[in-house]
Amino acid sequence: MTTEWNQLVEGLPRWLEASRAYTAQGSVAAYIPELAHAPAGALGITIMDGASGVARAGEADLPFTLQSISKVFTLLLALMDNGEDGVFAKVGMEPTGDNFNSMLKLELVDPGIPFNPLINAGAIAISSLIHGATPAEKTERILAFFRELAGDHSLACNEDVYRSETQTAHRNRSLAYFLKANGVLDADVEEVLEVYFKHCSIEANCRQLARMALVLAHDGTDPESGRELVPRRYVRIAKSFMITCGMYNESGAFAIRVGLPAKSGVSGGILALVPGRYGIGVVGPALNAKGNSTAGVHLLQTLSAEFDWSIF
Amino acid sequence: MTTEWNQLVEGLPRWLEASRAYTAQGSVAAYIPELAHAPAGALGITIMDGASGVARAGEADLPFTLQSISKVFTLLLALMDNGEDGVFAKVGMEPTGDNFNSMLKLELVDPGIPFNPLINAGAIAISSLIHGATPAEKTERILAFFRELAGDHSLACNEDVYRSETQTAHRNRSLAYFLKANGVLDADVEEVLEVYFKHCSIEANCRQLARMALVLAHDGTDPESGRELVPRRYVRIAKSFMITCGMYNESGAFAIRVGLPAKSGVSGGILALVPGRYGIGVVGPALNAKGNSTAGVHLLQTLSAEFDWSIF
Amino acid sequence: MTTEWNQLVEGLPRWLEASRAYTAQGSVAAYIPELAHAPAGALGITIMDGASGVARAGEADLPFTLQSISKVFTLLLALMDNGEDGVFAKVGMEPTGDNFNSMLKLELVDPGIPFNPLINAGAIAISSLIHGATPAEKTERILAFFRELAGDHSLACNEDVYRSETQTAHRNRSLAYFLKANGVLDADVEEVLEVYFKHCSIEANCRQLARMALVLAHDGTDPESGRELVPRRYVRIAKSFMITCGMYNESGAFAIRVGLPAKSGVSGGILALVPGRYGIGVVGPALNAKGNSTAGVHLLQTLSAEFDWSIF
Amino acid sequence: MTTEWNQLVEGLPRWLEASRAYTAQGSVAAYIPELAHAPAGALGITIMDGASGVARAGEADLPFTLQSISKVFTLLLALMDNGEDGVFAKVGMEPTGDNFNSMLKLELVDPGIPFNPLINAGAIAISSLIHGATPAEKTERILAFFRELAGDHSLACNEDVYRSETQTAHRNRSLAYFLKANGVLDADVEEVLEVYFKHCSIEANCRQLARMALVLAHDGTDPESGRELVPRRYVRIAKSFMITCGMYNESGAFAIRVGLPAKSGVSGGILALVPGRYGIGVVGPALNAKGNSTAGVHLLQTLSAEFDWSIF
Repeated sequence: MTTEWNQLVEGLPRWLEASRAYTAQGSVAAYIPELAHAPAGALGITIMDGASGVARAGEADLPFTLQSISKVFTLLLALMDNGEDGVFAKVGMEPTGDNFNSMLKLELVDPGIPFNPLINAGAIAISSLIHGATPAEKTERILAFFRELAGDHSLACNEDVYRSETQTAHRNRSLAYFLKANGVLDADVEEVLEVYFKHCSIEANCRQLARMALVLAHDGTDPESGRELVPRRYVRIAKSFMITCGMYNESGAFAIRVGLPAKSGVSGGILALVPGRYGIGVVGPALNAKGNSTAGVHLLQTLSAEFDWSIF
Repeated sequence: MTTEWNQLVEGLPRWLEASRAYTAQGSVAAYIPELAHAPAGALGITIMDGASGVARAGEADLPFTLQSISKVFTLLLALMDNGEDGVFAKVGMEPTGDNFNSMLKLELVDPGIPFNPLINAGAIAISSLIHGATPAEKTERILAFFRELAGDHSLACNEDVYRSETQTAHRNRSLAYFLKANGVLDADVEEVLEVYFKHCSIEANCRQLARMALVLAHDGTDPESGRELVPRRYVRIAKSFMITCGMYNESGAFAIRVGLPAKSGVSGGILALVPGRYGIGVVGPALNAKGNSTAGVHLLQTLSAEFDWSIF
Repeated sequence: MTTEWNQLVEGLPRWLEASRAYTAQGSVAAYIPELAHAPAGALGITIMDGASGVARAGEADLPFTLQSISKVFTLLLALMDNGEDGVFAKVGMEPTGDNFNSMLKLELVDPGIPFNPLINAGAIAISSLIHGATPAEKTERILAFFRELAGDHSLACNEDVYRSETQTAHRNRSLAYFLKANGVLDADVEEVLEVYFKHCSIEANCRQLARMALVLAHDGTDPESGRELVPRRYVRIAKSFMITCGMYNESGAFAIRVGLPAKSGVSGGILALVPGRYGIGVVGPALNAKGNSTAGVHLLQTLSAEFDWSIF
Repeated sequence: MTTEWNQLVEGLPRWLEASRAYTAQGSVAAYIPELAHAPAGALGITIMDGASGVARAGEADLPFTLQSISKVFTLLLALMDNGEDGVFAKVGMEPTGDNFNSMLKLELVDPGIPFNPLINAGAIAISSLIHGATPAEKTERILAFFRELAGDHSLACNEDVYRSETQTAHRNRSLAYFLKANGVLDADVEEVLEVYFKHCSIEANCRQLARMALVLAHDGTDPESGRELVPRRYVRIAKSFMITCGMYNESGAFAIRVGLPAKSGVSGGILALVPGRYGIGVVGPALNAKGNSTAGVHLLQTLSAEFDWSIF
């Protein structure tokens, strides 16, 4: 074990508790009723290295739904299903500067395709590209892919959250019909949304998240079996998007302050990775105004500064 | 008969033929497949006075669907059903400067209610306010109201156009779900859209349109029976909207050049009125870039200039 | 004298005092330091008919700068100087739905000319069209024209307000350079702004305002001399704009509630007219969020309802 | 020498000529008259390593003005002059998704500060933060800083381009006054613009650009003297911005396809770096629609793929 890993294992509970204070500056997402039940003061983290080392602290066992974090992995599956040309005919590669559910650029910028696959509009378009004869089959393929990356076949969709989302997410339905009008979606809108809401509702804990991140940190290779789960080229694309668009419209600040590829979700989860080294899963349901976990971002900033992890 | 009326009856065929040349500068709406079949070179007009006088020229018998013209009358029915406070809690009173199907202001301006009842977003909100237990009952009440104003109980919905609209109008569906997300629609979105697409698909000819306009020209009173069909206060509101927002985002130019309360539809119809005097129905399916009948606008401009009809 | 006029003269002080309560719901404009000194509780009105009748109440002698009200009259002078084609090559005819100093549509809508002559961008473009070899000469011509309409050769620019505006109005400077970049302004930006700020700073009281309005109410004819001061065609254009764009982005509501051609300024002045009959000048420096005099709008609404003045 | 360096030196002319074909797909910037004279078919590159190695090909001696490339270095100087808090009180850290000269977000997003220091609005704000009693003194300090990084004291401003810019860049003037109105600029607008246009007009060739990039590649240290020219922390900030916002609104695509910190200018220059290894200067005046050198981007993409340089 390296000295860094020892320091990390030893120091993690202390740094976590120092960051926990920042939960008080955020508030739990309320737009989906089911999310509002999450414990506002919670903060948990799991870090995995490629040699089976696991460091953890806080409420690392707290289950939470992946929400937008799932978008990184449906992008990867869509790339594996359709290739780059197939995917980038339907979504762009640029950050938007707008809110994650904004429709402004779909109306204002020609062609009216989503700017990138990590905003809601883009992730809905990506959901439509997953291969499968029915929404159920697509969802099964996504779940199988996520389970393989997480190294845990118990990963499953939280059906309460799914129902809650599908009944209340009128703004996403609006986005999807706009995409349909713009010719971005070939499939039936409700079928695409079923797939989208399902993968957003897949539930994980910090360890499972860290394991998914670890595969990306190792360029798509399963750290245990050595098997390639995702082509390296597609992992590179995903990591680029995680830097430029992974933390909603706070991605630029996160790049400067933390400097790691990461993706957050409104459930308070953050997946991050130290390239070539660690996979990280964080959960802290209290969010800032941009939709990112206040304490989670603070904890990652502390660790990145302490160990000089920034890729920049 | 007045001298003006005689001149009008006599001159109308000549002015119409002079305006027909402008059909070549426009093109028939293509966004709903059924509309694309309309004859591009057609132009027709009917003018009615309050004393049973009817002047007509060109293809005045050509049937066309009311499309956006219906929005003036659903607004009136919604006012009669809910009063001003009920209606203006859900839609504003201002022109937008944007396209009729734009969603920009719903996202950018707080509160996110439609700026006025004549853009698509506003008209969908208005559809949700029509009283009735079911979409079918609401549609029946709308149809009954329109028939009464048109003085013609044969007025009916064109089911082919309705089906065409309901299957292809994803942008309107997107608008409706955005309104739902913003809390503007209480009812089920698909039920609201059924009512909306139905009233847009009601079919009329120039005479029926002129008759509906004539009631507005006489402040809501049936010119034959003398019975009040619409309270004068609501007619005043409708006429104000027709001046400020009636001709899409060409309403300001139409106010300057023609100066009459009017409402156009993408089928090429225009309803206009000379207050206290005439009701006018025009049809010319070839549209300009703003969505108004090129030849129809030209013909109204000619008549307004000739007889000094502008209210300004 | 008509019965209406007698009722008006008699009732005006009472209606004014009832409306004065609404001054408490607004606040005096702060963006130009000099405007902030205006008395927040003041309310005054003068109404003139064509037969030398003058009705007045409240602080009708309070001097105030015309601000945006001047834009109606520079538009008229620009039309007289350049004709319609010359003017409408540089400004459009449509309401914007945006704030009076917005630059959004200059960037988003092609061609990038101001939507209408009554928003700031449009009025700056209009200022550049006034004939004259120098800014001073243009300003003199404007002043002479305004004096003629006001029937008062003492009308003058308030130099303190002018200096205050020219030093602080960076947003207007930004607008003007955007217009220059878009090819709308041929002249030097600072010279155009000198003319613009000068005519905004012309000071008047309610009587002078009412007299200017009276000329418009009589289609451009001086009610005393019978001389045509403005061609009727241009007055019609101005009145159309006053209805569709005269009260900032509250013009639609004003059309419905009051129904008179009017133009407001951030000094709290409102010029309004009853076509063929009265010219009206109002001042009430306390403004609502849209920039219109709270009490002034209420008073006009009361009078319009009382005497059924709406043109709709 | 490494095998990679030998391959690079040897292959560079061949790769450059293969990329030169892409000059035909772009066109030389026309918005500043002086820029329009640049040779459309030119393409040059210089690569420097930290051990005095220099690889070059094509028109590497062609002088060009830095334009937006200068913004990376004025940002660094502003950080050294004001610290992070001083700088980030005036500009944000986020990509915009809009054009480099857009004003939309200044009006739409609160607070109205520029989203980042590499768009025009942000770079103008940064120019105002450079220490110095007068514009001339600020410009001298900028020039001295640039010369030190370029290791070349002959670096100078192209006065013809400067005059051309200052006379024609009305859009930048508009931006600057908008910033003044929003309270972002404390200094006089024209004085700030003098500094801004001056540093945009500094002229360099590929070797000088490569040398400036080399300092960034080595975290701020002069590769010859070993002296720290820029604190490492500030270089990290600059590199983050170069990845998220360096290539206008094509930055996301460049991150995916090339994966190197870079900054382009409308003169066709691109500064890029391989962290810890190389500084790169490219020039190719023919630009694509986003404002980036068509052939220059293609050449960097070829090299990054060939040697696996992407940081992702």
